[in-house]
Amino acid sequence: MKAIFVVGDGMADRPIRELAMKTPLQAANTPSLDKVARNGICGIMDPISPGVPGGSDTAHLALFGYDPYKYYFGRGPFEALGAGLDVAHNDVAFRCNFATVNEDMLILDRRAGRKIESADNLAEALNCLKLNSFPDILVNFKHTTEHRCALVLKGPGLSRMISDSDPNQNDTHILPIVPLDDTIEAARTANVANELTSIFYKILDGHPLNEIKRHKGAHVANAILLRGAGTLSKEIKTLNERYGISAAVIGVNALVLGVCKAVGMQHLKVDEATGTVETDVKAKAKKAIEAIDRFDFVYVHVKGSDNASHDGDFDQKILSIEKIDDLVGHLIDNIDSRESLIIVTADHSTPVKLREHSGDPVPLAITGEGVRTDNISRFSEIDCSLGGLGRIRGIDLIPILVDLMGKSKKYGS
Amino acid sequence: MKAIFVVGDGMADRPIRELAMKTPLQAANTPSLDKVARNGICGIMDPISPGVPGGSDTAHLALFGYDPYKYYFGRGPFEALGAGLDVAHNDVAFRCNFATVNEDMLILDRRAGRKIESADNLAEALNCLKLNSFPDILVNFKHTTEHRCALVLKGPGLSRMISDSDPNQNDTHILPIVPLDDTIEAARTANVANELTSIFYKILDGHPLNEIKRHKGAHVANAILLRGAGTLSKEIKTLNERYGISAAVIGVNALVLGVCKAVGMQHLKVDEATGTVETDVKAKAKKAIEAIDRFDFVYVHVKGSDNASHDGDFDQKILSIEKIDDLVGHLIDNIDSRESLIIVTADHSTPVKLREHSGDPVPLAITGEGVRTDNISRFSEIDCSLGGLGRIRGIDLIPILVDLMGKSKKYGS
Repeated sequence: MKAIFVVGDGMADRPIRELAMKTPLQAANTPSLDKVARNGICGIMDPISPGVPGGSDTAHLALFGYDPYKYYFGRGPFEALGAGLDVAHNDVAFRCNFATVNEDMLILDRRAGRKIESADNLAEALNCLKLNSFPDILVNFKHTTEHRCALVLKGPGLSRMISDSDPNQNDTHILPIVPLDDTIEAARTANVANELTSIFYKILDGHPLNEIKRHKGAHVANAILLRGAGTLSKEIKTLNERYGISAAVIGVNALVLGVCKAVGMQHLKVDEATGTVETDVKAKAKKAIEAIDRFDFVYVHVKGSDNASHDGDFDQKILSIEKIDDLVGHLIDNIDSRESLIIVTADHSTPVKLREHSGDPVPLAITGEGVRTDNISRFSEIDCSLGGLGRIRGIDLIPILVDLMGKSKKYGS
Repeated sequence: MKAIFVVGDGMADRPIRELAMKTPLQAANTPSLDKVARNGICGIMDPISPGVPGGSDTAHLALFGYDPYKYYFGRGPFEALGAGLDVAHNDVAFRCNFATVNEDMLILDRRAGRKIESADNLAEALNCLKLNSFPDILVNFKHTTEHRCALVLKGPGLSRMISDSDPNQNDTHILPIVPLDDTIEAARTANVANELTSIFYKILDGHPLNEIKRHKGAHVANAILLRGAGTLSKEIKTLNERYGISAAVIGVNALVLGVCKAVGMQHLKVDEATGTVETDVKAKAKKAIEAIDRFDFVYVHVKGSDNASHDGDFDQKILSIEKIDDLVGHLIDNIDSRESLIIVTADHSTPVKLREHSGDPVPLAITGEGVRTDNISRFSEIDCSLGGLGRIRGIDLIPILVDLMGKSKKYGS
């Protein structure tokens, strides 16, 4: 038995006055999600634990069976892995922004205008740097999307226990990075990061591509702001090592891809996927249907629903949910339920009225051969709460799926 | 978003033959509790864990988000805090009884007749004592209700690991207190407690107020029985420190007030509240409605339902539940659901047929802006078990409420 696991990022919500106290999932037209609910078993799930809002990184770790309180040491390494950088267990990784600063290091725009031309080339100028004062440190740097980049420091004696240089607002100076504990490693890493900040500025401010931007009157991307220093837990075994299942991911969000890679999933690129509400879900479904021939477990991530939620736009969220419904419809039509499970859920709730993640549980439905069937026929936060799965925690999901896939191991005899 | 949290102590029950196999909650007329259920989300909750009967102290710790297995080191300090005594983290505190003993220390009545005239004055004679053999120990002593008192020992080298002097029955001698582990501190504390028992007897037996009692033929209150030695966990941070919420409590039960004070709640006195079935619930509701302007979180405790349960009196229990319903009705009528949640539950089940706490889960209902709504319309042990919250644990409740109040912090990013 195989499994296709579809997550609508931040898809779960709360009742909305303008939708007659329905949630976007309740208000949307979702015949295919409802079919999964009707043909299968439903429940609600606390991705982390009741009332605790998860980030996309911690929630995905939990959904893949890794207790984030044990395996999560900052966002940076997942961003870097997702960007395609290599991250070893003693590296320290960051997520970064291109920013625009003046000669006093005052931040004029902490996103350097957001849409940055030639960002890949600018980033390339910062990659594989060596520092004079720290000749044993190697710097890997890569642009991801818009103003976003990832940075990996490789070398001995590094620590993730350092502060951010990103003050998270404009019209303030770049913050000096300070150690967050008393170790030599934290002090050394803070020094490395501060020296890098200076060198990055020197290289970027004088870069010919920024000269062109100045001439055009565009934002120059002449500084790099660092945040989310983290390391990758040594203890993360792959899904294959843990359960003997080969796994692949279809999605574009760097952070989520990073978590997927950390647990050993192979990334299958879909050129038509965009990570926005307009993403081509049919292309993603098609890729998943192809992939399930080669992998035991195919994870399909759709980011649009979360973007719409953070924008406070319930119409767009409904649209995004209906696209996820389309995606699931293609799967149902093309997957043999005797050969593969279909699982639908969200990684966390992002109520559009909050524009932020909340700690509400998410709906969950599982269908396929061997799955017990309850009498729920609608995929929503409330309907699923009355389903046969009851209320489970995120880290319990993968063991349930692995068991339904026939790959669980008996405990005892 | 704010929250008014109402607990009917021991309110949950089991089916009762004389009530046609209904529980007191099912048999009672509870239009307002039902309205909370209908307008909100319901569930059942294991205050400690399934099948484990909580005490009022451990259950309240759990309901406020503090795992009692981590934060509970005996009942004494909560009784003492509730009585208005100061308890520091290295103090050892006890709950105590006034008792009547003869000159051989044989206990004639371990409650000294229960109703004790001038108990406050007798207790005052024991307060701020200094012991000749232990000059570095300070004794704080206070009468609470009827025969009940609280004692706090302050000084270096004390331990809670000592036995009780209260044999829990009459016609036996006061028990010598013994250390319960091999530490010097436990041995020293046992010696302090035994010496105190002698001194208390000397002071009380010769006290002029007891002479008057003797003349009247009333029980003399000439001894103090000690039990429940405990310390206050250093690790208990206030709700404000943990979640940034200011909290107040309305109630009279010393033990519950002690837990509330330990987690940083301010006690708001209601002169009309009695802690019995006859308590004036309207006055408590009115105080809660006033208080919610000044505090984020107002906790309202009603003890009557538990008293009726321990007395095995289901008629009185139904009456007490209907009073709690009145209280909640006043809240519903005067609280703006867009500004404050209303939460109703019990701290544990106390089946009237057992006359003791049981490990059954308790019903729970939460209403207010943003709360997902299920289709439960009756507040009872069984109806709520079919609700959208499913089955949660006591320590999960506060994170859920804090999240609904918009005060939760995202874990990860």
